[in-house]
Parts: sequence; structure tokens; C-alpha cells
Amino acid sequence: MAIRLGQLIEQLGGSLHGDPDFLIQKISPLETATSSSLAFLSNPLYRSQLATTEAGCVIVSPEMQSLVRAGSACIVSPNPYLYFAKVTQLWRQQQVAENSEPLVHPSAVVHPKAVVHPTARIGPLCVIEKGARVGAGSWLKAHVTLGMYCSIGEHCILHAGVVIGADGFGFAPIEGRWEKIEQLGAVRIGNHVEIGANSCVDRGALEDTVIGDGVKLDNLVQIGHNVQVGAHTAMAGCVGVAGSAVIGAHCTLGGGAIVLGHLTLADGVHISAASVVMRSINKPGNFSGVFPIDDNASWEKNAATLKQLHGLRDRIRSLEIAYESSKK
Amino acid sequence: MAIRLGQLIEQLGGSLHGDPDFLIQKISPLETATSSSLAFLSNPLYRSQLATTEAGCVIVSPEMQSLVRAGSACIVSPNPYLYFAKVTQLWRQQQVAENSEPLVHPSAVVHPKAVVHPTARIGPLCVIEKGARVGAGSWLKAHVTLGMYCSIGEHCILHAGVVIGADGFGFAPIEGRWEKIEQLGAVRIGNHVEIGANSCVDRGALEDTVIGDGVKLDNLVQIGHNVQVGAHTAMAGCVGVAGSAVIGAHCTLGGGAIVLGHLTLADGVHISAASVVMRSINKPGNFSGVFPIDDNASWEKNAATLKQLHGLRDRIRSLEIAYESSKK
Amino acid sequence: MAIRLGQLIEQLGGSLHGDPDFLIQKISPLETATSSSLAFLSNPLYRSQLATTEAGCVIVSPEMQSLVRAGSACIVSPNPYLYFAKVTQLWRQQQVAENSEPLVHPSAVVHPKAVVHPTARIGPLCVIEKGARVGAGSWLKAHVTLGMYCSIGEHCILHAGVVIGADGFGFAPIEGRWEKIEQLGAVRIGNHVEIGANSCVDRGALEDTVIGDGVKLDNLVQIGHNVQVGAHTAMAGCVGVAGSAVIGAHCTLGGGAIVLGHLTLADGVHISAASVVMRSINKPGNFSGVFPIDDNASWEKNAATLKQLHGLRDRIRSLEIAYESSKK
Repeated sequence: MAIRLGQLIEQLGGSLHGDPDFLIQKISPLETATSSSLAFLSNPLYRSQLATTEAGCVIVSPEMQSLVRAGSACIVSPNPYLYFAKVTQLWRQQQVAENSEPLVHPSAVVHPKAVVHPTARIGPLCVIEKGARVGAGSWLKAHVTLGMYCSIGEHCILHAGVVIGADGFGFAPIEGRWEKIEQLGAVRIGNHVEIGANSCVDRGALEDTVIGDGVKLDNLVQIGHNVQVGAHTAMAGCVGVAGSAVIGAHCTLGGGAIVLGHLTLADGVHISAASVVMRSINKPGNFSGVFPIDDNASWEKNAATLKQLHGLRDRIRSLEIAYESSKK
Repeated sequence: MAIRLGQLIEQLGGSLHGDPDFLIQKISPLETATSSSLAFLSNPLYRSQLATTEAGCVIVSPEMQSLVRAGSACIVSPNPYLYFAKVTQLWRQQQVAENSEPLVHPSAVVHPKAVVHPTARIGPLCVIEKGARVGAGSWLKAHVTLGMYCSIGEHCILHAGVVIGADGFGFAPIEGRWEKIEQLGAVRIGNHVEIGANSCVDRGALEDTVIGDGVKLDNLVQIGHNVQVGAHTAMAGCVGVAGSAVIGAHCTLGGGAIVLGHLTLADGVHISAASVVMRSINKPGNFSGVFPIDDNASWEKNAATLKQLHGLRDRIRSLEIAYESSKK
Repeated sequence: MAIRLGQLIEQLGGSLHGDPDFLIQKISPLETATSSSLAFLSNPLYRSQLATTEAGCVIVSPEMQSLVRAGSACIVSPNPYLYFAKVTQLWRQQQVAENSEPLVHPSAVVHPKAVVHPTARIGPLCVIEKGARVGAGSWLKAHVTLGMYCSIGEHCILHAGVVIGADGFGFAPIEGRWEKIEQLGAVRIGNHVEIGANSCVDRGALEDTVIGDGVKLDNLVQIGHNVQVGAHTAMAGCVGVAGSAVIGAHCTLGGGAIVLGHLTLADGVHISAASVVMRSINKPGNFSGVFPIDDNASWEKNAATLKQLHGLRDRIRSLEIAYESSKK
């Protein structure tokens, strides 16, 4: 695949300094770019790479243009990172355009009472159950399961193996065994949502589980029943959100983070990777809770001492009291 | 869908105070119920909601009956939570009864030497390998894989994407590489077991991996080879149990908990979410081990100090010795 | 299934002390072996079991041969664990040889522009996308997704539900929403790699994600985009490795461990289960970071105190200063 620099400018804007007929054959990081690569500089910290890169063309901000090597092509745009994102999208569109497969793969199992928008793409071996809905321009990749009466908005991407609308984990404890509470709610997913491979969003018990517009979930993420996730919140891989948690908009959850059930997170809360949210957080900010890794021997000693920590505090208090009284 | 109150009483018992021909059109929480909703009060802490709910009918215990608003219908039952669970099951049965699909979906790949009970339901695109067995009334949803010679008891539910009987993680370290130990055991799953979406139960190395009756596993749970899980134990999402662990009956594991290999947990052990079980636990009780979450700056300071904790203990001891000797 | 002792010796070597026509009907641990079992002793710590086992034949090292019960058959081999591994492989080969299914299951969806080696086995309901490659002798079990242009080397095993080549989690934050960065790299997997059920390896953003020869990943493992995993590294279940991490060769990661993005781990680094790697580790060794589990009440007290730990350190320092000055 290849693309003319002039074609980029026509489709994405920006101002080109260089030959519009120059052919870009790949997109590369500045460090590994070759003479047929397009690269970009977003973070000014890396500006020294402009002097050494072999990229055939670089995307830069107006402030950085003067640092581009003499004779080297560049595209000037106020937000090079966004411009780069748009280039990757154009690149992928060309690849997909070469694809002549039907939008709904013949191997997919689509219930006659499901509603799939004529512009949606349903990949091979997907299962779309009764009453489910898929909005315009959405793309379900291979092996996705969309449970009955669950709905996907417009321009969403669900990666391979995603399961939307499995039963929430609801059981009544009755005399030592678990009586199933059938999960009668569904899942409602907004527009421009992306969900990573093998992630799961459970259907609600009575009401629906709701994923807001623009939410991005990475792979192997678990969203429990009746959870609400606010718009443009992102969760990295292996995150688990327990039932009925309410996550605000514009939050981020690092990989492996766990949010307990029935908690509320305000808008703009950022949870570090592998941290466990055990109480509601009602203001924006950055929150962490991870045991620091150490060589094994040091960890063992510190972990053992940690089990006596409350007692140590009491011993410090006793020493302070003794010291205070000794001064009198 | 709708159901007459009289029909509920006929099928589930309880005593009705109200019009048996009243039509329930949905089941709702007390707070959001409307005049066509059935709601329930289980926890007496929420009894004040009986005065304000708009529910057309509420399920209550005999003790709470007097608090139901005058003129409002109610069903009186000794265990309203169990009654509610039974109502959800009746509701779902009616939905499924409208389903005229064959029990074994034509897209499923069932090996001719697998044994599927004539009352079992095999969803679309399931794979049932050679020698596998599925008991009466069990339901494998879409995309389930049941590996060769593995067996599922009666009245089980396996949600979409579950993998039963992948190889356990068994390798012999031989001169810097890993020599595969073929996993020749299988998986045996009891009756009334439910397993959540994309969860995995590995086959045993030589003997079988065994899941007891009534066990409930949530989504994205990993059960290693040769694990034994006792009856009526429940594990929330993202739990991982390493190989050869023996988990008792009536245990609960919170979301994201990890149990290391070859450990034993007694009956009635309850592990908090995200806790890591590193030693056997031989008595029932509640156990936790999670770093408390905090704002980032506080966490950083405390985590850094934690790496010196053993040294701090020694400094406290030195201070105590100094104080003791100063008193002499 | 059954196998003659003589046949084992012919195929795997070792010296037999016993009747070559004796039929082994199963492979068992020493403790549970019966007279038709083959068992093995690898760890000399368990040598006393040689006196009590009922195994029909045991695999032992030359040093242990004298401890085998008189009249009992044994196979002597310098590495009994390796010999045992080879026996399991032979056992499984016989089972598979009875299988007359075609190598590429007719239900698999293989793109006409994918390249599958004629000796590779593609299980039921797999999806092999355009331009993907599967090497000689590799086996993709049921429901595997191999994304476009991704490649699998020779003699690999991918268990059910594995997703290779889903998009990496790449988005540019633009005015409060996430702009997708199309993931234009692929995944390259070496030879003799095994990947567990429902695990995911994401495609790279611009360059490829790379899994080295002999790597073993357990179930529900997440490998982010542009990660590099060195040869013969093993990761247990539920591990998550964030984008662009570089893991050395011959490393092990315990179950549930998390490695943050853009970090480097040297060769021979061993991370304990559930530990979180938050900084690069540039030397081999064993590393841990887990909050020790405790009964709930003790944990609560210690965890609460942990949030004051930095302050406690200051109080210890104050006491030390006070003590020092009191001595003057």
C-alpha cells in the first residue's frame, strides 16, 4: 500500500512543504523511519529526533517546523498527534476498501428478530440474538456475542470474542445454596464505543447496564450487571468493575484495576493500574494503591512486618508518651 | 410480556392481597417501580420505601405486611428474596418458551461421539468435542467449547465463550526450555453449576479437575488444572485459581482474588476482592489483603516508606531498648 | 487406550527392568497409582513413596533404582520428569491418531489469502483472516481468531478462544474524547509457542508485537501492543502486560501479575504471582509485591495504619532525634 503526500493534504488538511507526488509506503516512529516513511513529532521532548530521523516526511506543529532538516518534507498541522491518528485511519480505510466481503459475514448467526443497521459490519461467526440492535457504521469483529435485547450504538467497534449481555452474577443465598435471579435487564452501549477482545459486559438484573458514548474498554475487561460507565471513560486491560458501580465521565482505569460493587466514581477520576477501589471517590484526581515490588527477600521481611503494623503504631505512641512524661 | 398476579400465586405460592387479574408488566426495584411493576422488600432496612414506592404490587414478609400502603396489592411470603428470585425465573421461562429454536443449534459443532442429553440446550457455534457429556437440562450458550471427555452435570448454565477442558499449564523445565506435559485428565462439573462468560476451567494433568454441585463462577474466571472446588462455592469476576488448589464448600472469592497453587481452603472461607491467598487457610472466616487506595501523592509516600518497614521496626526496637535502659 | 512397556522403550529409550509385554493402561501419580498404572519419581524428596506405591511400573533415575520394590517393573532414565513428559506426549499422540478429522475443520473460516501450512491443524470455528500465516505442525484449537497479517510459527498450540491481532489500545486524547489510532502493525509469534484459552495478543500500532520461540502463556493472559516477549518466557494465568513492555528471555510471571507499559525486564527475571511491575528490572532475580492476606479484622487495622505510614516514620525520626539530644 502507498499514499501520495498530496492525497493526505487533500483529505486531512495541513500545509505541505515538499513534493505532493512523493509516495509514503509506511508510517513509522521517528527512530525507525526510513526514506519511504511518514513519521510525526508530537511531544516536544523528542524534538532532537528531527535532526536524525531518516523519515521521508514528518508531521510537525508550526513551532517545530524550523527544526525539520533542510530538504526534508514536512506536513505542518496544529495538532500532529491528531493528524497522525487521522493518517492511520485513512491508511486502514484503504486496506478495508480492498475488502469485498459482504458486511454481514455469511457464517454469522443473526436472529431474524435482531436489527442490524445496513451499514453495520458483522464479522465471521458472530452471534446476534433475538431483539438485539446494532447501529449505523458499527463493526463487530469475529466471534462476538450480542445477547438478546442488547443494543450497540453507532460507529462502535467490538473486537473478537466480546460477550455483551451474558447474565449478571445474581443469586439469592438460600439455605446454603444459590438460587438464580434471572437477569431481566439488557445492555445499552452508546456511540463511538470500542471494546477489546474477550471483554464482557453483563446484562442488568432488572434495569440495564449502560456504557456511555465514546467509552473505550481494552481486552479482558469485565463489567458487572447494572454498572454505568460515563462518556469518554477508558479502561485498560484486565480491569474488573463489580455490579452496580457508577463510573463517571472522562475517567481512566489502569490495567488490572478493580472497582468494587455499588461504588460511585466522580467524573475525572484516574485510577492507577492494579489499584483496588474499595470506597466511592467523589472528586476528580489520581488515586493509587499498589504494594511496591521489591526483591523477594526484602518483600518478605516488609510484608511480615506489615502484619504487625498496627502494633508498631501503638509502640511508637507508647514511646512518645514515655518521652513526653520524661520531660516533665 | 405480562403476567397475572393470580398466576404467580398458582405457580409460586404465597398469599395475595389484591386483584388476581392485575397484570404485572415488569419487575422493578422499589425506587423506580411504576404502577405496572412488581417489586419486593427483602432487607428491612429499606422498609421506608414501602410508603413511597409506586409499585403495583410488592412482595413482603408477614412482618412487613402492615407497612404496605393501603389500597396497594401485596404478596406475602416468608422469604421475599427467594420469592422474587422465583418470579424472575418464571418471567425468563415465559420468554424462552416463546423461542421455537431447536435445542441443539444447527451451527453448533457436536462430535458424533459426544453425549448430549436430549433435554440439554446447545447454543449457536458451540464446540462439543469427542467423548464430552452434557447432562439433562443444561444450557451451553453461544461459543462455548467443551473439550474432549469433559462432562457437565444436570441443570448447568455455561455462558458465552466459556472454555472447559483446555490444557492445564504443565511443562517440565528442560535445559532452558519447556517440555510439554500432555494433560491427560479431564474436567468434571457437577449439577446446578453456572459459569460466566469467557471463563476457563482447565483439564487435569493426570487426574481430573472437579467443580462441585451448585458452584457459581462469574465471568473471566480461571481455574487451573487439578483444582477441586467444593459444592456451592461462588467466585466473582476475574478470579484466578492456580493448579491443584483445593477450595472448600460454601466459600466465596471476591472479584480479582488470586489463589496460589497446591493450597487448601477450608469450607466457609471468604476471601475479599483482589486479595491474594498465599498459604492454606484451615478454618472458616473472612480474609483480606489489599493495599488501601489513596490519593496518588499519599500513596507514593507510604509505598516508599513501606519498602523500609522492616528497618523501621528495628528502629522502634532500638528506641524501646534505649528507653528501657535509661530507666534503670 | 493401552501401551506396552516395550513400546515405550522402543520409542523413548531408557532401560526396562520388567516384562516388555506388560500393558500400561493409565499414567498416575505415585500415590494413586494402581497395578495397571505407570508412575514416575522425579523429586528425591518423595522417594519413600516408591515403597508404598501400587504402580505397575515406575520411571526412576539410576540413583533411585535400588529403592524400587522387588518384583516391581521400572524404567531407568537419567531425567524421569522429561521421560514422563515424553510418555504423556506419546499417549496423546495415540489418542489424536484415532482422530480421522481433516486438518482444517470444515467449519473454520479461512480467508483465501491466508497461508496455512499443509501440516497445520485448524480447529472448528476458527477465523483466519487475510494475509495471516500458520506454520508447520501448529494447532489452533476451537474458536481461535488469527487477525490479518499475523503469523504463527511452527509447532505452536493456540487453545480455544485465543485472539491474536485484535487492535492495540491506542487513542489520542483530543478535547475530552479519544481519537482512534489505527493499529497498523501485526503480531509475530515464534516456534513452539503455546497460548492458553481466551488469551489475547494485540497487534502493534506501527511495528509488530513479537512473541519469541518457546514462550508459554497460560489462560486469560493479555499482551498489549508492541510488547516483546523473549524466548522461553512463561506467564501464568491472568497476567497482563501493558503496551511496549520488553520482557526478557527465560523469565517467569506468576498468575495475575501486571507489567506496566514501556518497561524492560532483563532475562531471567521471575515475578511472583499478583505482583505489579512498576519500574524496569535490569538484573535477573526474584521479585514480589503483594499485600499479605490476614483475617479481616487484622487487615483492616493494618491497612488503616498503612495510610499513615509516612507520618509514623517521621515520628520515629523525631523520637530518635529527641533521644540523641537527651544523651548529650
